[in-house]
Amino acid sequence: MRIAVLGTGMVGQALATKLVSLGHEVMMGSRCARNEKAIAWADQAGEGATEGEFGDAAAFGELVLNCTAGTASLDALRAAGEDNLADKVLVDVANPLDFSQGMPPTLEFCNDDSLGERIQAEFPRARVVKTLNTVNCEVMVEPARVPGEHVAFLSGDDETAKGEVAELLESFGWPPGRTVDLGGIRAARGMEMYLPLWLSLYGRLGTGDFNVSLEVGG
Amino acid sequence: MRIAVLGTGMVGQALATKLVSLGHEVMMGSRCARNEKAIAWADQAGEGATEGEFGDAAAFGELVLNCTAGTASLDALRAAGEDNLADKVLVDVANPLDFSQGMPPTLEFCNDDSLGERIQAEFPRARVVKTLNTVNCEVMVEPARVPGEHVAFLSGDDETAKGEVAELLESFGWPPGRTVDLGGIRAARGMEMYLPLWLSLYGRLGTGDFNVSLEVGG
Repeated sequence: MRIAVLGTGMVGQALATKLVSLGHEVMMGSRCARNEKAIAWADQAGEGATEGEFGDAAAFGELVLNCTAGTASLDALRAAGEDNLADKVLVDVANPLDFSQGMPPTLEFCNDDSLGERIQAEFPRARVVKTLNTVNCEVMVEPARVPGEHVAFLSGDDETAKGEVAELLESFGWPPGRTVDLGGIRAARGMEMYLPLWLSLYGRLGTGDFNVSLEVGG
Repeated sequence: MRIAVLGTGMVGQALATKLVSLGHEVMMGSRCARNEKAIAWADQAGEGATEGEFGDAAAFGELVLNCTAGTASLDALRAAGEDNLADKVLVDVANPLDFSQGMPPTLEFCNDDSLGERIQAEFPRARVVKTLNTVNCEVMVEPARVPGEHVAFLSGDDETAKGEVAELLESFGWPPGRTVDLGGIRAARGMEMYLPLWLSLYGRLGTGDFNVSLEVGG
């Protein structure tokens, strides 16, 4: 499949590399042409790896992953172009963490809003699925780094899109029983608002290689 | 031990009943004298169970549990009286859920603030420990309702107070390895901001008998 990975940071690199290793054609998108990190990535990632501006990548991809910094995601998607996102599954793994006031970061949108909802509202023809934002990028693409039956959450308004993303997650190593569909994109709120707890746990545990399992009674 | 349980709702009743069953003397506190729910509770809870106004209960307790609705907690604690809370461990299990705009609720304080922090700031002589707000009241007092090594989080600025609360939790059925100290009271933010995810999971699972376990790699 042709996949656009928007964003050249750690998250974009981890996902793009994993997708190439799974045999997909991946274009890494960045704000400006000839982005050094994107070129370096494409050079070393091997066959199937290319790079371009956000718009080039979004036009190329049959599926688009938003791996930009959450506070820059709406601008990045505007640059990608609404027409280039139309009718495509848009996987949003970003968190709108605002570090401008120091640590701990706050969320740019929360409580009665979320980045996932903002994206769906501004790009109504995109089929937005929020997922994987509750684990770090190493765990996203190699869940077996963490023992146990830990889970990946999904939310989105398009059931078919969520099914396709669950299959993509399965190819990363997340079995179907460990993807938890929380409902419509409004549930992105809870997924993003989990981040402050994640950050506290990261501080407590001293590693990002962790996740939560669900235990259910009765 | 003499314990004040502020609040007459499901959470207060569950905790007060558990504490009486463990042999503590418990006074349930409410806003107005002769609260019907508090009287009914004290009548059926047996020896060691009494009721009174918030101030009576806080004066009585060597340890105080805030089980009031989160959006009413600061008022309830003002009524309890700062002097009655001074130097005491004040266990805050409340969530500042605001249902006034319908479902899903929002949080009255979040992102750069939390109820736990507000309480500690307004009552600096109280030794505030946030805990148990991430599970429903049945699981709080009977964690074995849920299988697995699921956890209870703790936060607070007073290490000794957290140790005392961890012992109280152990008496409820939370072994020491399953109480996770997240640090100072600022971590109450993440604990409270987890609630929207909890509510989504509650909707998805159809039961409140659930909790999360931590899985840690490497």
